[in-house]
Amino acid sequence: MKTRLCMPKTALILLILSSALFAQQSSTELNLMPIPKSIKITTGKFVLDKNFTIVINTKEVKLFRAAERTINFIAKQTGLFFVNQFPTFDKKQNSNYVEITVKADEELSLGIDESYELNVNEHSIQIKSANSYGAIRALSTLNQLVTTDGKDYNFPCVSISDSPRFVWRGLLIDVSRHFEPVDVIKRNLDAMAAVKMNVFHWHLTDDHGFRIECKSLPKLHELGSDGDYYTHEQILDIVRYATERGIRVVPEFDLPGHATSWLVGYPELASAPGPYSIERNWGIFNPTFDPTNEKVYEFLEIFFKEMSLLFPDKYWHIGGDENNGKQWDSNSKIQDFMKKNNLKSNHELQNYFNIRVDKILSKLNKTMVGWYTDEMPDLSKGYIVQAWKGRTSLYETAQKGYRSLLSHGFYIDLVQSTEYHYQNDPIPPDSILTDEVKSRILGGEATMWAEFVGPETIDSRIWPRTAAIAERLWSPSSVNNMENMFKRLDAVNLQLENYGLTHLKNYEMMMRRIVKNYNVEVLKTFVDIVNPLYTYSRDHPHVFKSFYPLTRIVDIAQPDPKVPREFDLLVEKLINSPKLDNDLVNEIEKWLVMWKNNHQKLIWLVNSNPILKEIEPLALDLYNCSLVGLEAMQLIKENKRSDEIWLTKSSGVIDIAKKSKAEVELTIVKSIEKLIRKVQ
Amino acid sequence: MKTRLCMPKTALILLILSSALFAQQSSTELNLMPIPKSIKITTGKFVLDKNFTIVINTKEVKLFRAAERTINFIAKQTGLFFVNQFPTFDKKQNSNYVEITVKADEELSLGIDESYELNVNEHSIQIKSANSYGAIRALSTLNQLVTTDGKDYNFPCVSISDSPRFVWRGLLIDVSRHFEPVDVIKRNLDAMAAVKMNVFHWHLTDDHGFRIECKSLPKLHELGSDGDYYTHEQILDIVRYATERGIRVVPEFDLPGHATSWLVGYPELASAPGPYSIERNWGIFNPTFDPTNEKVYEFLEIFFKEMSLLFPDKYWHIGGDENNGKQWDSNSKIQDFMKKNNLKSNHELQNYFNIRVDKILSKLNKTMVGWYTDEMPDLSKGYIVQAWKGRTSLYETAQKGYRSLLSHGFYIDLVQSTEYHYQNDPIPPDSILTDEVKSRILGGEATMWAEFVGPETIDSRIWPRTAAIAERLWSPSSVNNMENMFKRLDAVNLQLENYGLTHLKNYEMMMRRIVKNYNVEVLKTFVDIVNPLYTYSRDHPHVFKSFYPLTRIVDIAQPDPKVPREFDLLVEKLINSPKLDNDLVNEIEKWLVMWKNNHQKLIWLVNSNPILKEIEPLALDLYNCSLVGLEAMQLIKENKRSDEIWLTKSSGVIDIAKKSKAEVELTIVKSIEKLIRKVQ
Repeated sequence: MKTRLCMPKTALILLILSSALFAQQSSTELNLMPIPKSIKITTGKFVLDKNFTIVINTKEVKLFRAAERTINFIAKQTGLFFVNQFPTFDKKQNSNYVEITVKADEELSLGIDESYELNVNEHSIQIKSANSYGAIRALSTLNQLVTTDGKDYNFPCVSISDSPRFVWRGLLIDVSRHFEPVDVIKRNLDAMAAVKMNVFHWHLTDDHGFRIECKSLPKLHELGSDGDYYTHEQILDIVRYATERGIRVVPEFDLPGHATSWLVGYPELASAPGPYSIERNWGIFNPTFDPTNEKVYEFLEIFFKEMSLLFPDKYWHIGGDENNGKQWDSNSKIQDFMKKNNLKSNHELQNYFNIRVDKILSKLNKTMVGWYTDEMPDLSKGYIVQAWKGRTSLYETAQKGYRSLLSHGFYIDLVQSTEYHYQNDPIPPDSILTDEVKSRILGGEATMWAEFVGPETIDSRIWPRTAAIAERLWSPSSVNNMENMFKRLDAVNLQLENYGLTHLKNYEMMMRRIVKNYNVEVLKTFVDIVNPLYTYSRDHPHVFKSFYPLTRIVDIAQPDPKVPREFDLLVEKLINSPKLDNDLVNEIEKWLVMWKNNHQKLIWLVNSNPILKEIEPLALDLYNCSLVGLEAMQLIKENKRSDEIWLTKSSGVIDIAKKSKAEVELTIVKSIEKLIRKVQ
Repeated sequence: MKTRLCMPKTALILLILSSALFAQQSSTELNLMPIPKSIKITTGKFVLDKNFTIVINTKEVKLFRAAERTINFIAKQTGLFFVNQFPTFDKKQNSNYVEITVKADEELSLGIDESYELNVNEHSIQIKSANSYGAIRALSTLNQLVTTDGKDYNFPCVSISDSPRFVWRGLLIDVSRHFEPVDVIKRNLDAMAAVKMNVFHWHLTDDHGFRIECKSLPKLHELGSDGDYYTHEQILDIVRYATERGIRVVPEFDLPGHATSWLVGYPELASAPGPYSIERNWGIFNPTFDPTNEKVYEFLEIFFKEMSLLFPDKYWHIGGDENNGKQWDSNSKIQDFMKKNNLKSNHELQNYFNIRVDKILSKLNKTMVGWYTDEMPDLSKGYIVQAWKGRTSLYETAQKGYRSLLSHGFYIDLVQSTEYHYQNDPIPPDSILTDEVKSRILGGEATMWAEFVGPETIDSRIWPRTAAIAERLWSPSSVNNMENMFKRLDAVNLQLENYGLTHLKNYEMMMRRIVKNYNVEVLKTFVDIVNPLYTYSRDHPHVFKSFYPLTRIVDIAQPDPKVPREFDLLVEKLINSPKLDNDLVNEIEKWLVMWKNNHQKLIWLVNSNPILKEIEPLALDLYNCSLVGLEAMQLIKENKRSDEIWLTKSSGVIDIAKKSKAEVELTIVKSIEKLIRKVQ
């Protein structure tokens, strides 16, 4: 066994180096994500057979169920007919078992020890952890380790010692702007657990819908939800489901703004007279609770009390963002109150409100979390601030003594690249913060805001990019090789599908809906290379409404698509290589010819299906880009420079093609531009 | 407008005949399933635009919601941004609206009037029905009518008058042998409604799992379900969901046999001493309630009473099948009871039991439904008998005065052909039954028994074949053109996917799991032409257990696959045509060459993925069949006969290939055999 020291300071990553191992790299290459803190790969494998079983040393239900899930997951992967469906408590055999030893039963809470040791030997696998949650993380690793060399399914022999870098690794799902049924939430919790995320931040209320049953104040869900809300039973079921996977559930009840849906049933609590109706447009809206009305606090106390019976976690998100203050400005009663209480700005009034809310929550033993606002309220130091507008606020609040979370740079709803998110380290290596301040940076959260996603598309907006974010928050900072990350992400992406995600399978389904044909190849060739527009740039001729269909090309197109990324790698390789590589030339030309030849069939589809009409100019752009690209390739092959006329024409094609249409952009344009620059 | 009289006696089907219409047939061809009783197609179209709206004349919630679903469905299909998300109650515009007029509010019950009139004119659509359920059927038709000519999305102008042939058009889903979560049931209810089925027969209990919460007898679900059961809230939610779609929910609590899961918690009610544990094997098992124990009836009364609060339908299925009587035979107390009460056989004892159960149910105002047993119990004439072993019992029981349902021939779990099910008319045209007896034949039910299906595969076992059964039970008996049925089924199959079914999208997903690659073309080329074995013939080396994975090729392969059916049509055309059609020859050879050339890559996959090992002999069969097929084609092209040696060799290849392996069969073998016979 040969090893190499990669991370001398904090962790030890030991990579396959011996030539014997290199020889079988394709079968033993590990596609783990997040990468463990320390991993030693040894020779040999644990061969799965029908006697495979998991032995656990505790009767804790959550560990039992996690082990059962792993048995089922591996059975599904391998098609093996295991003799035992359930984990056992006694070791009855000498080989083909996983033995899990946990030290104590602990309640899931912020900062709980999630570390584990995982040792795969040829005959047995040992998992050791402080509590069941560490073991549950180890089982996620084990699921990712299943491999095959063609002869059998096996686990490569490894020795892993792992623990997370940050204690808060979250995913926010906004279920207000578009509702997500229970099964959508559950499959995403499974996927989160697969990549060791541990906080589900549930954005349950906003202007567009109040998504939780409230028995003591029933007009909240009855009038504020269009009938789309979770019942108590469903909430409890999801919280249990998450807890069993080591995921804390932090509910968010956004206040005092973003409150339209609350005020439909209780307009008397608003800062301006009603009536209110559920908001159907996107944006920031006026309806805001009246912080000077004592009834508001009585109401919130009743509400929070009921909700606290559903959410056991100590942390409680109160939103607090984007209150535009318009209702406060124009309400003379509120203005009088501010003067009387020496509150000089809306900010100070909101601060007052927050302190009142904090008091109510304290009585319920809950600690507040809130979105960063320009000035920090005068709250107890326990308060957690979530930075979203920029990363400076992350450090500022930590320096002021608050704990903080990074969401800026993790706004997955904006449809940015995996690379961008992956590089968004909450504490970059060159950080000058003191260790004490650093310790207050708890981690971060990917945010799935739901203006442009519904149950059919949400998975493809979350995954696989969020797996890269999960790695950023779990693995050491030094794990940052982009090429290797993409290689592993590709494998993990496929494996995530086994947890029920629809991010891959809805892709062609949505195309079948449009073309009404089982064969979607022509349309797919096109959609494979377009990217939904960066959300803030989406400037549709229609002001988008919450009930508009999410079935167009922009909704089908996958964020950060794979084909253009791989095409760009080819182009980069070509233009940077000192001598002409014919294989590379052929490969690039194959793509260009394919896009060119697809054009006529694509136009036929466009003309047959009105929903595709909007992509016609883009189809033409692609055709023109392919032609220009092929011409550039000809010059490259002949080792010639372009003339001015061609250059002007080609640049014109590129300029037009760079402009997004139908809310998507052609992602291969920049690569073709590189080919043009090459022959310039 | 030209019309043709198709069904002079009972219904009027008017088909596109004018040459003008033929010219645009591809766009106006109607893909309705089930075919309405009467349909007149006129010229013109109703063009959908953003002002499309549905106006209803009643504030009934179920109709409002059905209309809302149609608006959303059409928006998703077309990508149109409708101004109105909800139906309205006042007609505010002169065009682009659907106007629904229902006469009265009625409760959903057996035999309710489901007829409707649907008239599409260029500017408006009129729907008229006796009650909301008729209108809901009309909306299903409307969803199927959306089409496009490339210029716009529209409804072709038609005049439809429709009503069902049978009042009971059901789908049974067995959730005991494999549990199906709420979302699986809901999407199947949506698909049922799309093809106008009206009974969801919910097989909730069996040896393998007790799937419903029982608060008064909690050991039933707590000990009998492995934790997989529906809560009261979920049951009520599903019943509401079904009712809103015009689907009655008939629960089945199978008794006195098939009862293992009940007896795990209450072994004292069995006919033999316990303890009992949840059954993990497939088959018929001994555990049976003790009909001589008065406690059994007290228990059932408590149980039925609680269940009756969840299921509003008047009909109640008590199972009653496959009681093997072994526990009764060996229990001396039961034998004494039989002697004392002059019960001469187990059948008479079961009859006694049924009569006692019937009394309990009568008090709850429920009418019993049961599986046919060899002799009919002496029950009230209200009793409904479900024929499953053969169709004779359907007629026998109807002749004896009972109402009856046909499930024999609709056992979709057996993986038989669509054609077979489609021809399974409960009352064939040549029936000699009297009208009175005929009137007691209420309809039929497709049965999705769940030995070999789980949440991932169930949809593909139900659909699309069940859509053909739905047509058999709704449309006139004279609607029986197989070619036309398959054409429409193909279109409806794609449309069903829009209700959330996974029958198409899980196909490639399951292959991705095996090959761990985004591209599954090689494997798909193979799986496209294999059929899962007729279930009763599945004779796996392993005795199959309930928890074995359902992820092998037999689970992925689709029942009655399309490619072999279409290949066979080509072959039939070739061998029956008087002169050689070169296009046909090319097409057939293209398939054969593809299968031949796929072989090496397929074997590479087999060698890389142990789960595929079992299909290796089949892969070889396919390769050999392709070679033989190509040789036969050569002879056909040269207009030659084969020699004896070739014939012997080829027949040998076919004989081997005809034998199923890995629980699947190569469905193209019979077509290649036809080519051999052609040159014999």
